[in-house]
Amino acid sequence: MKITVINPNSTVSMTQKIESVAKAVASPDTIIFATNPDDSPASIEGYYDEALSLVPMLKLIEAHPESDAFVIACFDDTGLDAARCITDKPVIGIGEAAYHMATLVANKFSVITTLERSVPALEHNLQRYGLASRCVKVRSSNVAVLELENPASSAQQRIRVEIDQAISIDRAEAIVLGCAGMADLADTLSSDYGVPVLDGVRCAVALAESLVRVGLKTSKTIGYSTPITIKV
Amino acid sequence: MKITVINPNSTVSMTQKIESVAKAVASPDTIIFATNPDDSPASIEGYYDEALSLVPMLKLIEAHPESDAFVIACFDDTGLDAARCITDKPVIGIGEAAYHMATLVANKFSVITTLERSVPALEHNLQRYGLASRCVKVRSSNVAVLELENPASSAQQRIRVEIDQAISIDRAEAIVLGCAGMADLADTLSSDYGVPVLDGVRCAVALAESLVRVGLKTSKTIGYSTPITIKV
Amino acid sequence: MKITVINPNSTVSMTQKIESVAKAVASPDTIIFATNPDDSPASIEGYYDEALSLVPMLKLIEAHPESDAFVIACFDDTGLDAARCITDKPVIGIGEAAYHMATLVANKFSVITTLERSVPALEHNLQRYGLASRCVKVRSSNVAVLELENPASSAQQRIRVEIDQAISIDRAEAIVLGCAGMADLADTLSSDYGVPVLDGVRCAVALAESLVRVGLKTSKTIGYSTPITIKV
Amino acid sequence: MKITVINPNSTVSMTQKIESVAKAVASPDTIIFATNPDDSPASIEGYYDEALSLVPMLKLIEAHPESDAFVIACFDDTGLDAARCITDKPVIGIGEAAYHMATLVANKFSVITTLERSVPALEHNLQRYGLASRCVKVRSSNVAVLELENPASSAQQRIRVEIDQAISIDRAEAIVLGCAGMADLADTLSSDYGVPVLDGVRCAVALAESLVRVGLKTSKTIGYSTPITIKV
Amino acid sequence: MKITVINPNSTVSMTQKIESVAKAVASPDTIIFATNPDDSPASIEGYYDEALSLVPMLKLIEAHPESDAFVIACFDDTGLDAARCITDKPVIGIGEAAYHMATLVANKFSVITTLERSVPALEHNLQRYGLASRCVKVRSSNVAVLELENPASSAQQRIRVEIDQAISIDRAEAIVLGCAGMADLADTLSSDYGVPVLDGVRCAVALAESLVRVGLKTSKTIGYSTPITIKV
Amino acid sequence: MKITVINPNSTVSMTQKIESVAKAVASPDTIIFATNPDDSPASIEGYYDEALSLVPMLKLIEAHPESDAFVIACFDDTGLDAARCITDKPVIGIGEAAYHMATLVANKFSVITTLERSVPALEHNLQRYGLASRCVKVRSSNVAVLELENPASSAQQRIRVEIDQAISIDRAEAIVLGCAGMADLADTLSSDYGVPVLDGVRCAVALAESLVRVGLKTSKTIGYSTPITIKV
Repeated sequence: MKITVINPNSTVSMTQKIESVAKAVASPDTIIFATNPDDSPASIEGYYDEALSLVPMLKLIEAHPESDAFVIACFDDTGLDAARCITDKPVIGIGEAAYHMATLVANKFSVITTLERSVPALEHNLQRYGLASRCVKVRSSNVAVLELENPASSAQQRIRVEIDQAISIDRAEAIVLGCAGMADLADTLSSDYGVPVLDGVRCAVALAESLVRVGLKTSKTIGYSTPITIKV
Repeated sequence: MKITVINPNSTVSMTQKIESVAKAVASPDTIIFATNPDDSPASIEGYYDEALSLVPMLKLIEAHPESDAFVIACFDDTGLDAARCITDKPVIGIGEAAYHMATLVANKFSVITTLERSVPALEHNLQRYGLASRCVKVRSSNVAVLELENPASSAQQRIRVEIDQAISIDRAEAIVLGCAGMADLADTLSSDYGVPVLDGVRCAVALAESLVRVGLKTSKTIGYSTPITIKV
Repeated sequence: MKITVINPNSTVSMTQKIESVAKAVASPDTIIFATNPDDSPASIEGYYDEALSLVPMLKLIEAHPESDAFVIACFDDTGLDAARCITDKPVIGIGEAAYHMATLVANKFSVITTLERSVPALEHNLQRYGLASRCVKVRSSNVAVLELENPASSAQQRIRVEIDQAISIDRAEAIVLGCAGMADLADTLSSDYGVPVLDGVRCAVALAESLVRVGLKTSKTIGYSTPITIKV
Repeated sequence: MKITVINPNSTVSMTQKIESVAKAVASPDTIIFATNPDDSPASIEGYYDEALSLVPMLKLIEAHPESDAFVIACFDDTGLDAARCITDKPVIGIGEAAYHMATLVANKFSVITTLERSVPALEHNLQRYGLASRCVKVRSSNVAVLELENPASSAQQRIRVEIDQAISIDRAEAIVLGCAGMADLADTLSSDYGVPVLDGVRCAVALAESLVRVGLKTSKTIGYSTPITIKV
Repeated sequence: MKITVINPNSTVSMTQKIESVAKAVASPDTIIFATNPDDSPASIEGYYDEALSLVPMLKLIEAHPESDAFVIACFDDTGLDAARCITDKPVIGIGEAAYHMATLVANKFSVITTLERSVPALEHNLQRYGLASRCVKVRSSNVAVLELENPASSAQQRIRVEIDQAISIDRAEAIVLGCAGMADLADTLSSDYGVPVLDGVRCAVALAESLVRVGLKTSKTIGYSTPITIKV
Repeated sequence: MKITVINPNSTVSMTQKIESVAKAVASPDTIIFATNPDDSPASIEGYYDEALSLVPMLKLIEAHPESDAFVIACFDDTGLDAARCITDKPVIGIGEAAYHMATLVANKFSVITTLERSVPALEHNLQRYGLASRCVKVRSSNVAVLELENPASSAQQRIRVEIDQAISIDRAEAIVLGCAGMADLADTLSSDYGVPVLDGVRCAVALAESLVRVGLKTSKTIGYSTPITIKV
């Protein structure tokens, strides 16, 4: 089985981190191929960057018809619906993956994301997916995505402040890390806090494998119908 | 006051129809400028076409900083959130405009849109805007957008079938026409059916004028913050 | 175009303030006529006063059949549904007007109203209109309506305390002023806080004009059917 | 214990029917006093009639301070919130009473009401009370309230048509009769259809007794605070 | 009329307290029979204890076919749906009873329950019943159920801390006590705080009486159909 | 990895069918152990049978501490919350598994279940999980669970009638089979109807594997805290 993991932004170090995390969770017989566009924003912070990343991301879906499944490795699930229109292979967003899995190990969860400008888009997704009632709060850590690539930044410290509050104030039973760039932090944080801390990359890779194993493909009858002309 | 009305698809005849309807409703002192990208799909039928139209539409927002307000004249409100990030001038989608106005003249409304593949995106918007509880049903007329440009097609007849059902079965008190290409039908249909039949182009132009007159600009504090770098 | 703006309470100074604000936002060719009953409560603070104001307000609708549209200038949208039954001209409440417009310039808003006893009625309206999901919180400033008529009161100071909290705690992107008596404060507060601060009177007058310009009338088929006998 | 049952319309035959039903369900030591205003509409069909009935109904609450509880015997729960402001004795609407009780004997219920113009107000109430998710459908029987006072009318037959559909199509497990004028039909219909058919008058009288017995009074701290001046 | 009140846990002192409270609220001609299984957990703290109590509780329903109604006196409404399947006599849970009654005397209420592990089950119930929108918050007092049986514990003090916060922070207009073991505290707390403090035992007994008096039985058509074989 | 798959009813032929389906989807290195209690009902048809199956099912969880994950193979997710209290290993219900996976391949799905008496419990689950907004309708096929074990019955034919309607009337993009006894039908039906037809057993086994691979365990901080005494 081959899973193509697309980082919709153009920061290669982030793609490498994502690939490493994805490979660690994949089954031995699963090939993980991680990639990113070179013409999308360096990071996706809110609605505008998301818009700019859409077509570059879709081109990478188109470019890998040999894949058995796709993971979109940006926490706002950039272009997820459009991607499902151009392939019948499973396409999983890391945001939705983490939300769904969190509901399987906790009654309620909170999300810790990056800059506050990204919060409304995540709230919209939670509402659409139906899982808003399971999320206590989407918290901004005031960390820019690319700060996560800089080990010298105080990013992790600010994330920990929000986890503390999610546990003590929100009474969240699980924490969802709201950025692909936080993927390497999940294990340490889970261990330190004693509650499940979910990283969407791992969740999405595992879910994509599951869908392939179950033999599920995207429905092509209404909303995800194949476009009359593929134009990318 | 100048309002730039952007048809996000590249069909010029549709832009002309939109312009004509927009001018008819605008105040005498309002300049309506209607335009469309030349590198977007000829019509927007569902998630995929919407994705392809986003950046071309945003470029037209960028190209007209002299405008006092913008109208996005596609019923799925293509790129509305991203557009609000790159200007503080009011940006109104024709979908949201029609939904909001329908709630001011009716307890419940139904929407008649084009192909069924567009229905889920409209339902998502209604949910996000908060107005899903006011909409009985989003009905597909099984009319492709460009059929509306062909007077010889049976498009209007199929739309009428759905309006009949929206009134008799949904018990809708008002009808929202779910495509910019239906803008010229609203008056006749209102008159024929004796209930308000709303066209989003008119509603959006009037709302855009209202926001300018009230002096309202898009909030720049959280979700619609100006991007750190404008990259279109 | 003539818009009759009805202040449902009997405080003339408040009607004058409303008229002044309404005229400032209306188009040059729009006649604003502001009026109030003389047999309703001096202010509307909660469910009971609202009940007492209903029939006096409806009589003023009946008395002005020459109007092209009506604005009900009390933030709980007193008698809005009943009013829509006795005329097919657009009737807009200042509460609904501000809520709808706030959603066009912000992802989420908070409301600052007067005494806490008015909060549940506003929450009911938000729920009915469908916009509760867009409102973070309805905040009471603990200001009685008529204190707003007294420049020597600390009313504005208490309103500012709540705006501070709406911005810093609720993370609201826009503020809705929840009383017609606050109509004169919107510009100053918008400017001071750097976020849209919406006054319902302005919003409602602009929306009423919009509906007239678009040619929309209240649907008469189900909930707003003309009463068999008009009995006011 | 004395319970004052107020029919908010002015039709005395209806008040008598209500009184008879109320007495049949009350405990032996409970005094039922049924009354109606003489200056309200003969029937309440929709928003407008409801508005006209509010103050006459409130005056009857004021006139009976010796009562231990009040029942508002119109299915749209006319003026319920305002009534709770002017007394701390329990006030129960027959609509809310029937809805609450229906959820105690059935997973889902449907409502059969009179003219379709009353449907939106009932739907609003269900939404506010929180019970909309328990109601499959509010069905109009196309019966005017006063037809129910005429034994020669086909009212009951039309109600039965809707009950048939509520059971076979809505799969409702219980039926709520949506008008005080249907109070005398509940037993026969329950027996004929083999599902609970609830009449709000009985439900409300029993609930009012319950609240008195438990010693509950209306909270006076926020929304139902005593008005500063009682002005009826 | 005979009402069997079942304490689903096996703590006899708690059953006695419940019986005493139930008798105080019942009508003179109502026989209250309180009982408990001897093979269920000593207290019900969360999902697991609830599961263990289900069958012992159902056996007590089966054992008392002469009853006119049943009350399940555990605040999580243990086995309520299953109980309704094996009898057509009314079965009322004390949780649902308190929630419904609270909505009749207050716009919004908060719940004060025992250990935090019980909170999610109560939130699920509120959501199912439809009343989640009326409840501001379910608060844990961090009091174990059996501490309530020990007058020397600080249980009441911790409950009061939460009531203080429910009133001052949640702005709840009424308080619901979220454990049968708190039944004896309602009067004192109501009096001390000046807001309705509801105990579910009293509410459920009164509601059960009401249903019997109105002649309502559980619908047997769909979800509560009699099991093909009764197997307890 | 060992996954214990518990059929909560006592019908061995059904357990065998479940085991066969589970093994077909599991990874080569995953051991599937399917089991059932011998003291639970032969089938679970609604609330009452569910109650009887709870403790027998929990005993099987207790009996297999060596498992890495558990699947509860009844579509009403019998005892899922209680099971999560007594182990920190992932526990997945086949109902929730199918619902979550359906949302990853379709905008909207419908469920085809067995007898109508099971419908309300499934609707409650969908509401609690948050996924009710993604499900158009839970349809009963009027097939008793054990009819599915009889190849000569017309069960499959009646299921097909409902799938036809789910596709043509509900406009569902995917179908969820609402009973473990239908697990062997998914592939044929998917192929015949050209839309994803999901069987919960396969989905749950794949999800359980995913959770183990990602290293997720059930949160033990609030609702799923370990019981003070394990009493099964």
